[in-house]
Order: sequence, then structure tokens, then C-alpha cells
Amino acid sequence: MVDYIAFDSTQALEYVKNQTNFFAPDAELTCYEFGDGNLNLVFRIHDQQQHSVILKQALPYARCVGESWPLTLDRARIEASVLIRHGEVCAQTTVKVLHRNDTLAITVLEDLGHMHILRGQLCQGHTYPNLAIDVADYLAKTSFYHSDFYLSPAQKKALVKEFTNPELCAITEDLFFDDPYHRSERNNYPNELQPHVTALQNNSNLKLAVAELKAKFLSSPQSLLHGDVHTGSIFVDQTNTKLIDPEFGFFGPIGFDLGSFIGNLLLNYCAQHKRAVELPKRRDLHAYLLNSIQTCVAQFEKTWLQLAKTQTRDLALQAPGYAERFINQVLRDAYGFCGTELIRRTIGLAHVADIDGIENLRARVEVQQQTLLLGEQLILQAPQCDTKEDLSQLLLSLLL
Amino acid sequence: MVDYIAFDSTQALEYVKNQTNFFAPDAELTCYEFGDGNLNLVFRIHDQQQHSVILKQALPYARCVGESWPLTLDRARIEASVLIRHGEVCAQTTVKVLHRNDTLAITVLEDLGHMHILRGQLCQGHTYPNLAIDVADYLAKTSFYHSDFYLSPAQKKALVKEFTNPELCAITEDLFFDDPYHRSERNNYPNELQPHVTALQNNSNLKLAVAELKAKFLSSPQSLLHGDVHTGSIFVDQTNTKLIDPEFGFFGPIGFDLGSFIGNLLLNYCAQHKRAVELPKRRDLHAYLLNSIQTCVAQFEKTWLQLAKTQTRDLALQAPGYAERFINQVLRDAYGFCGTELIRRTIGLAHVADIDGIENLRARVEVQQQTLLLGEQLILQAPQCDTKEDLSQLLLSLLL
Repeated sequence: MVDYIAFDSTQALEYVKNQTNFFAPDAELTCYEFGDGNLNLVFRIHDQQQHSVILKQALPYARCVGESWPLTLDRARIEASVLIRHGEVCAQTTVKVLHRNDTLAITVLEDLGHMHILRGQLCQGHTYPNLAIDVADYLAKTSFYHSDFYLSPAQKKALVKEFTNPELCAITEDLFFDDPYHRSERNNYPNELQPHVTALQNNSNLKLAVAELKAKFLSSPQSLLHGDVHTGSIFVDQTNTKLIDPEFGFFGPIGFDLGSFIGNLLLNYCAQHKRAVELPKRRDLHAYLLNSIQTCVAQFEKTWLQLAKTQTRDLALQAPGYAERFINQVLRDAYGFCGTELIRRTIGLAHVADIDGIENLRARVEVQQQTLLLGEQLILQAPQCDTKEDLSQLLLSLLL
Repeated sequence: MVDYIAFDSTQALEYVKNQTNFFAPDAELTCYEFGDGNLNLVFRIHDQQQHSVILKQALPYARCVGESWPLTLDRARIEASVLIRHGEVCAQTTVKVLHRNDTLAITVLEDLGHMHILRGQLCQGHTYPNLAIDVADYLAKTSFYHSDFYLSPAQKKALVKEFTNPELCAITEDLFFDDPYHRSERNNYPNELQPHVTALQNNSNLKLAVAELKAKFLSSPQSLLHGDVHTGSIFVDQTNTKLIDPEFGFFGPIGFDLGSFIGNLLLNYCAQHKRAVELPKRRDLHAYLLNSIQTCVAQFEKTWLQLAKTQTRDLALQAPGYAERFINQVLRDAYGFCGTELIRRTIGLAHVADIDGIENLRARVEVQQQTLLLGEQLILQAPQCDTKEDLSQLLLSLLL
């Protein structure tokens, strides 16, 4: 076992050639690095017959900032382990791990280069008919099978330990729940937004509701989350959907993943006011996005309750009606976390291309005003909603 | 380092003589075993000058059942570590650890032989003026300083791992939340109680509320609990109170410890209907117990909020009003957990001497009917109470 070194393309190629058997021994391999994410190196290694794999390697720092922001290599272990566990219960929508090496912080993955990253596609106005159902299926199955309903308490406690992920969780804790609601050097928004940011930071009811959400993020290990379900972590084509990049995985509140996903669809929804210039196209996209959210929530709930009905192993949690009550709370949480995603992507450190790609400042600020307001109201009002219908009604009333 | 062996009195004496320096080298020591608990060996080692220490050793099985019920020695590590951490923030009410040896599953403790175990004293009708305040102080300080309000997320996550305690938690999970609500061989109650037990086990609203409580016990690591705060885990005299035996310690819902304590006072309250034959004495004891509960809850809340106000380090959780909201939920949880303690001590495996010591069967069954009904109503109605005043009102309405 060698110690960690950060690979260049040649080393990545040699590693795959010598340490795996994906390619024929005499295959002529090519390798290039194309990572555009914030944190890691990503290599594609392919032969002349259109066979290819992805080699992902964590760096001991955050790539987008540099060596001044050290970041644990342990995230590669977490990511590979989450993918393997999620793949066991939802293979169809989880990128496949072909090989792992935790010392080198390497994961070799199936190449999804024939598919597209969802965010870019949505920005360009493309739609995907199976997206909502597939994501719902992934979120329901991965969360049910790692919850107290299904795992024995001893299994679950062991997994909670295994997936303790303090450094990556700290990023979420800071960026989602602290920075946007206080003055912070990491915040990032145009001056034009300052009055709205000031109002938001002075809204004590909002801060109270955000405290509730942060407390849940900190101390509610309901299931093994992906931890970063934004539209940049999802590959799509017209038939398939694949989740990637769960390096933020940990045992947390189930609503967090669903809320992050909905939040990203809503960020795109708001951006389309300025992106989709033609009204019919805009209406179509808005209808698609809203419909996707409603379908995803409904399908998530339905699948979860079906699993709970037939596969709950915990005796007490089998009490009739309990799963329904549990999932209603998960949905309320989801809309709340969705609100924090809308806000932190607007005024926090990490933005989304959906909005930042709008070149006209005034148009962009208008969109940002909407995402802030929408986020604020979802956080404040979701806790009062009893059912998914109420939550859907709330969302519609805020959008239409 | 030697491997584990279970000590006899001679070995316990030799260990203290050779491995510690509590006694002068030439001291003439005596040792006897007097453990009457369910799980462990307990030795007292003393010299001729009235110096003494307690050596507690875990056995690799539950003492009350025998070798057929294996039980992890790791509980000795947990117990010593909880005592040390709790002692750091509340030395006055935590028994002092003098020495530990995790391999031998040994903890050497200060001898509290000049004090009395609370349960026996309450059964005999003795009262302790500082009890409520002392226990409140212990519960507030130990839970605040190990919560997300005070610890950094990274510290807390490391401690959650360290205090993962699956085998002991499983006992609570089974005995508190499963057995009493289903047919179980471990349940233990007289035939006369069967109609009441059947009604309880058919009460679907109750089972729904118990599922909520179990889910919290499983997945709400709010703070480092004692895990077993019954009146047999508390030493008292007229000035001091000392908590012992936190081998069930783990990160769980804060209300569990407070609820267990209140539950044990209420078990005694109900038992006094038949124990304290003379009405004036009974009234005094009832008033003392009720007053202790109210004082304990009020003081717990007050101390917690004071600590939260001045020492909360988490930025989001500093939101004005959040600590109040958090503690209100903790109190609701506490009354709910209290209800599960009343029920499981009545019809589950492990009873309390307060009730089982009532020799007349008919009198005992009457008390058991009351504890069942009280437990049931607390579990059902506590979630609807907004404040500690509402909770107190609820309790009074059920008792008077």
C-alpha cells in the first residue's frame, strides 16, 4: 500500500492499467483530467474501442480555493461507501463504483459521459420526463433502507459511526444555516440586494425557524443521506437518471436531500423568468418544473409508505399511522431545507449557474429577490402545513 | 496489561492495594462484595481508619440472569467516561471516579456508604429537601454542556461515536418501548391486571405516541445522557445528592433522563396510597413528591435557559427564543418518557420495590392500575401541552 499522492493524468492512466482489469492488457489508453467541480480531480481514461472509466481523486484541500483550505481525504471513503450502499438499494439511479482505494482517496466509477449534468440542461431549457420519479425512487429507497424502520438499532448505530463526516458537514452547517443569516465575509451578493439581505438578517422569526432546521441537521440521524443533491450532482438523459458525488453523505434528517433537490428546481424556476424569453416556452418550463416537484414529492411519499407498510422491522414503528406521521414531518422539513437552499445559493458563498449565468445585473437581481422571498416564506410557513397538499398549496401561492 | 478476569474479594483487595495508592502501603485492608444490582460486581475495600473505596466490576453477562444473557464489558468504559464528563460540569452531584481500568472493566469510585439509596428512603417515607434542585442542576448542566448549543459540531460528532452504546441501549429500546405494548415473554404482571394490559395494548393512539418516543430515543442525539436515572441510581442524605451508575449513557433525547426521574417519583407517589397508611403522613409525602417534581422541572428549565443565554456557542442556535422553544419540547418529551417508565415498571420485566414491596395483592394491583392509567395519559396528552405550566396542570389533573 502506497501513501497518498495526487495523480497527474499519466499516473491516473497507469493506476487504472496496473491496478484494475477494466481494459485488455494491451489496450491503448488515453487519459485526461476534466474536473470542473469545487473539490476533486476527475480523470477520464478510455481505450480506442469507446470503453472508458472515470477516476475521481480527492485532494487534501478544496480545489476551488487551494491549499489554504485543507479538506479531509476521508471524503473519498465516505463517497465510495455511500455510493455502494445506495447502489445496493437503488442501483438504477446510483452511479456504479468499479474500484476504490481509500489510501489514495480514489474511486473508479462507470463513465456517464453519454449523459448530461442536469443543471446545464435545465438552464438550456431541456426537460426530462423520468427525472422526478427517478429521484423520488432514489430518495425513498436509500432513506427507507437506512432508517430506524428497517435497520436494527445496532446496525444503524454502527453505520452512524462509519459515516460520521465532520469536515464536510461543517461546510453545510456554515454555508446553509449560519452565513446567510449573519454578516459573513463568505457571503456573496450584489449591492443592489443589500436592503433585502438586511431585512432577512433582521427577521427574528426566520432565524428561529432556521435554528430549528440547523438543530435537525446537527442531531437527527434519521438515515444515510446523499448530502448534496443539487442539479449538478445528477446525470440525466431521456431514459435514465444517475446520482453522483455523495461525499457530503452522513446520517441526517431525511428531508434535507429532498429539500435540496426541490430547492434546485425552484432556483431554475425563478431563473427562467429571465432565461426563457418567450412566454410559451417559459410557461412550459415552469409547468415542467412545478410538475416535477409535485410528482417527486408525491412519489417519494408513496414509495416510502409502501416500503414502510411491507418492510418495517421495528416493532414500535409498525404502529398504524406512524409512518404517515413521520413522512409528513419529513416533507415539512424538506420544504424548510429547500428554503435554506434558495437563500444560501442567492447570498451565500456558493451560487448556481442558473442565476449567475443571467448576464443582465438588473434581471439577475430581480431573480435573486424572488429566490430570497420564496426561501424565506417556505422556511416560515412550511412548519404550519399538515399535509403534502398544504405544502404544495403553499408553494403555488408563493409562485403564482 | 492483563486480560479480563472476574474478581473475587481477595483479587479486588489486591488490585486496590497494588494498582492504586488510596491506602497507606502498610494499611490492613478488608474487602467484601455487596452488589445487589442487576448487572455488576460491587466491592467495598476499607482500612482500619474508616477510609474506604468502592470497586465496581462489570461481568461479561447480566448478573441478574446469568451467563445466558451476555452483556458487553464495554459498559464499564462508558460508565467511567460518562461519570468523568458529567463530573467535570457538575462535580457536586456526580460520584467521583478515582481510578479506571477498561480491560478489567473496573471503576474505582468514592465510597458513598454514609449516604442512602433514594428508592429505599422514599419507600420508608423519608424526604430530602435538596433532592429536586440537585437533580435539576445535574440534568441541566450535564445536558447543556454536551449539547449542540455548547459543543462544536466536530466535538459532538466525536463524542457521539465514543458513547455509542448499542447493547445497553437495546435493553431500553426493548423494555421501555416494545415489550409493554405487545405480548412478550419478558412481561411480568399479575393476572388481575390482564384486562388493563389488553386495553393498553389495543390502544392504537397510545402506540402511535410510543412510536414517536421510541423514534426519538433511537435518533435524537441531543446530549450525553445518564441513561438510567431511576431512584435506585441516586444516593442522598440531608445535604447532598449523588448520581451513580450511568452505564446506559449515550447521546439521546434530553427529556429521557428527566422523564425517568419524574417517573420514579410518580411510581413512589402511587405506591404511597397503600404504603403510607396514615392520611396526614400520606398527604405530606404526596405533597413532597409533587413539589419535588414541579421544583425539579422548573429549576431544570431555569438553569438550562440561563446556560443557553450566556454560553450558547452555536451561531444559529443563539436565535432569540430558540432555547425556550427547544426546552419546551424537551419537557414534553420528558413527560412522555415518564409515561413509558410508569408503564414498563408496572407490566414489563423490571419492576420497582416501591410497588412490588406492597405485600397485599389487591392493594398492589390498585396501585398498578393507577400507574398504568397515569402513564397512558401522560404519553397521550403531553404532546399537546405548550408550556411547563400546562404539563404541570396535566399531571395534577391526573393525580388529584
